[in-house]
Amino acid sequence: MTTRTIDYAADGLTMTGHLALPAGAGRRPAVLVGPEGVGLSDVERRRADALAELGYVAFAFDLHGGRCLPDPQEMLARCMPLLADPGRMRNIGRAALDVLRAEPRTDPERIAAIGYGTGGAIALELGRDGVDLRAIATVNGLTTGRPGEAARIRCPVWAGVGSQDPIMPPAQREAFTAEMQEAGVDWRLVVYGGALHAFHHPPVTHRVLPGVGHHPQHARRAWRDVVDLLAECVPVT
Amino acid sequence: MTTRTIDYAADGLTMTGHLALPAGAGRRPAVLVGPEGVGLSDVERRRADALAELGYVAFAFDLHGGRCLPDPQEMLARCMPLLADPGRMRNIGRAALDVLRAEPRTDPERIAAIGYGTGGAIALELGRDGVDLRAIATVNGLTTGRPGEAARIRCPVWAGVGSQDPIMPPAQREAFTAEMQEAGVDWRLVVYGGALHAFHHPPVTHRVLPGVGHHPQHARRAWRDVVDLLAECVPVT
Repeated sequence: MTTRTIDYAADGLTMTGHLALPAGAGRRPAVLVGPEGVGLSDVERRRADALAELGYVAFAFDLHGGRCLPDPQEMLARCMPLLADPGRMRNIGRAALDVLRAEPRTDPERIAAIGYGTGGAIALELGRDGVDLRAIATVNGLTTGRPGEAARIRCPVWAGVGSQDPIMPPAQREAFTAEMQEAGVDWRLVVYGGALHAFHHPPVTHRVLPGVGHHPQHARRAWRDVVDLLAECVPVT
Repeated sequence: MTTRTIDYAADGLTMTGHLALPAGAGRRPAVLVGPEGVGLSDVERRRADALAELGYVAFAFDLHGGRCLPDPQEMLARCMPLLADPGRMRNIGRAALDVLRAEPRTDPERIAAIGYGTGGAIALELGRDGVDLRAIATVNGLTTGRPGEAARIRCPVWAGVGSQDPIMPPAQREAFTAEMQEAGVDWRLVVYGGALHAFHHPPVTHRVLPGVGHHPQHARRAWRDVVDLLAECVPVT
């Protein structure tokens, strides 16, 4: 497994992503990895590395021009307008997808997108934009889209959320699953009992918002669930 | 892998269960397999066999004294009173557990219970009765118990349900997950998008109730999820 840092342009910024390549040669299925709103950190870089160990080309993409936003107010000030603007989310996602597609090891016919929070919302928007993905996984980011656009999603969608997540409450989960169901999408939702927002994310040193907390056991399960989805939809042969 | 039919007494009937033993010798983790309300059929027998192939001692238990109840009216006439009577469910579950524990290959410290519909409700009731289980999985059977008793459940609970299941509708799912959450149980719920009641069950030749239907893709996923739970909680070493 080898890794490489890649700079690219998106959303008016210079983004800095993390590409992880599996051992061996030849094309492999590929995975976009979208970070939480706080931004790309070693958490997502390690996930990309873990996927490369499993045989995938993985690209953990950047949200904020090479920065993390440890201050909740700064994070929300940037992410809330972004989450309200499908065009900007798609721009960020498509720029990352272009990087992944430009990698010679990537099999362009077998690309999946996984993401967490804002990164998950971007993965969903790529599907609503009609991008040819083989699977979408979103943890915490159960965001709804513009009317009618979910019907463009042509791959399985897997979603995970903490039962006690106040930022993604039951009404939002129901709006999301209703959108998927009405659009005829092949979807699943896993509710992790007792988990808060960002339950998958190891503790960080900066301040966190109320309702956010790590749940190591459910974090391991959610990762297992995502890996199972990839094994189903983009198996490494 | 070898199998054996075992007769035993429960609920005033002579039950006929299906025991599947893994190859090799020595004790192994063990799994109770509870059938849908229609009763023990080759569907559950094959699941027990598949678990034995994975290295588990598995016992698919009987609900109706060696009979299947292909007529929906007859099935409901027997199952509805049963589902309303925790004592009878526990009797049926404990009798099956005694058979499993009597098998020398069973490691009595590592027993899990999985079930479908009525069989899932029985698996949950064993937990509420304080039985020392290592994991409980229930598909379709998201039944609530008597107040306070869920606190006796000391193992992870995994539940699966079809989003369009009219027999296990959202209000019932919420009552079930609220019971688990209030009791401090380590729980998860998977909602399989578009799936009906008994989505995991291959088509049967008899008449089925409205709202019942097979969903092969989600059926495979639910099996994968159950196997993952067993791998987490009662790994074959």
